Amino acid sequence: MHDLIIVGGGAAALSAAVYAFGKQLDALMIYEKIGGKAGTQQHLQGQNSEEYVAGAEASRALKQQVAAHEAQLLCDRVTSITKTNGTFQVATEGHGVLETLAVLVATGAVPVQLDTPGAQDLLNQGLGYSATTHAHIVAGKPVAVIGSTLRALRGAAELARSASHVYVVVPSEGELETPLGRALRQRPNVEVLEGYHVKSVVGPFNVTALVVERGEEHHRLRVNAAFVDLGLKPNSALVQHIAQTDAEGFIWVDERYATTLPGLFAAGDVTTAFGEQILIAIGDGARAALSAYDYVLANTPVNVPVS
Amino acid sequence: MHDLIIVGGGAAALSAAVYAFGKQLDALMIYEKIGGKAGTQQHLQGQNSEEYVAGAEASRALKQQVAAHEAQLLCDRVTSITKTNGTFQVATEGHGVLETLAVLVATGAVPVQLDTPGAQDLLNQGLGYSATTHAHIVAGKPVAVIGSTLRALRGAAELARSASHVYVVVPSEGELETPLGRALRQRPNVEVLEGYHVKSVVGPFNVTALVVERGEEHHRLRVNAAFVDLGLKPNSALVQHIAQTDAEGFIWVDERYATTLPGLFAAGDVTTAFGEQILIAIGDGARAALSAYDYVLANTPVNVPVS
Repeated sequence: MHDLIIVGGGAAALSAAVYAFGKQLDALMIYEKIGGKAGTQQHLQGQNSEEYVAGAEASRALKQQVAAHEAQLLCDRVTSITKTNGTFQVATEGHGVLETLAVLVATGAVPVQLDTPGAQDLLNQGLGYSATTHAHIVAGKPVAVIGSTLRALRGAAELARSASHVYVVVPSEGELETPLGRALRQRPNVEVLEGYHVKSVVGPFNVTALVVERGEEHHRLRVNAAFVDLGLKPNSALVQHIAQTDAEGFIWVDERYATTLPGLFAAGDVTTAFGEQILIAIGDGARAALSAYDYVLANTPVNVPVS
Repeated sequence: MHDLIIVGGGAAALSAAVYAFGKQLDALMIYEKIGGKAGTQQHLQGQNSEEYVAGAEASRALKQQVAAHEAQLLCDRVTSITKTNGTFQVATEGHGVLETLAVLVATGAVPVQLDTPGAQDLLNQGLGYSATTHAHIVAGKPVAVIGSTLRALRGAAELARSASHVYVVVPSEGELETPLGRALRQRPNVEVLEGYHVKSVVGPFNVTALVVERGEEHHRLRVNAAFVDLGLKPNSALVQHIAQTDAEGFIWVDERYATTLPGLFAAGDVTTAFGEQILIAIGDGARAALSAYDYVLANTPVNVPVS
């Protein structure tokens, strides 16, 4: 039986693995793809270049250290996680069922896509999934932000510094009733369109307009760029039957990254913890691994040492 | 007036500075010493070498990026922080009083020292402030752990795997009533001495014994090494009059690293957040900076952009 199985291959999982391997635990990391969002272009665009560099450097160092523990890495897909008689059974596609004392889930999340005509065709041609690093290229132009997450509002506030006009299209209220949301409405060049949905993104070669609707009402917003941030969809299906998740499926964790099920820990974007940055995911992975370590120390059968 | 002043020079402060500089905030970092615990030998001993490498790599990357913003760095000592009419006044020894919209405190903490005869003389000669990386050198020998923090108990559990006998000397109950604490008492080679204080550390050249007492009672424990973990003392004097701290002086922060005073954020070992590892401090610094950024965006006076 293993002490700990870590599920995932992103920054949080890598950081957790480095801690667990360093602590000499009999730990196994099961991943489908190493790197997580740190390795995707989309996330790179979502990161300011300076903060990205530090995160990428740290990820690189973690990857190197994890790679040195080849025997503790398993490239496979986990199909289910159950707990029986105090231990976990982690079922995999290619390696059968593995027994472990503790599990750490760091399976990440994926951005909710804008599912509307034109959205796919105009991706990266004026339509993007991150506003915050594009503030400089929209100077003097009208733009739109679609979404009401904290990150969407932060992006809108940044864009409003240089864009001529910023439409904020919010299907649901989201974080609008926060200090940031309220401040945004005060800006003379920001227009918040509450309750509107995007009906289509208009090209043909680059984004030229958004058609938005609310009930019978339609508007055509002339914009040079549109940024989507409709939130994240957590990859939490594996544990939804054994641990508490919130309404959107994020795994609930306490301040030590323990879930509601003893022995099950979680870190990174799949959790309710606020973050979405590589360095934050790395910190959380370390913290969750430390908690899992304490759990393993407390629950390992006692052996008299050889002296 | 600055947007944000970051006080501190350790991992949390560096990480916060990279985020704030990257976000183009008018941010200033005021430090007395760059590096924090990541630069101290003591902390190196406290880290498993693998986890330390990742933390050190990340710290190095952060330092390089911060160094590129020379105009936003100030080597000085902060003497007071006050808030009047919605803005903060940060008084420094050498640069007068600086005005800022938000403040992020990452001033760290220092380990509580064992203040007892012999402790100073025998430091690093069998007496250390970290147990977890010394498990291998005490194989088959009797050792002592002094303290009842989670870290002390974790260290004792690790040492118990190889040491012949582990005395755990706990002046106060601490974390003894946790799963880890209870598991520790079950181990046949662990002896928990509750309510005992260390009266002296006996040498002469290396630790050979500890004299412990409880009231009139005295015991001489023959040990080859002793590890002290009496917890941390936070460097929080600057904000104790303006923000809530816990009984030991740690600054209370919410899940976004906001203190009880709007505009004042904190990260790293000076806070109530659980951690004490470089990677965790880095993640927390990033998270606190992001929250400070949202605060600045929400509280910056509105200007119509030049278009």
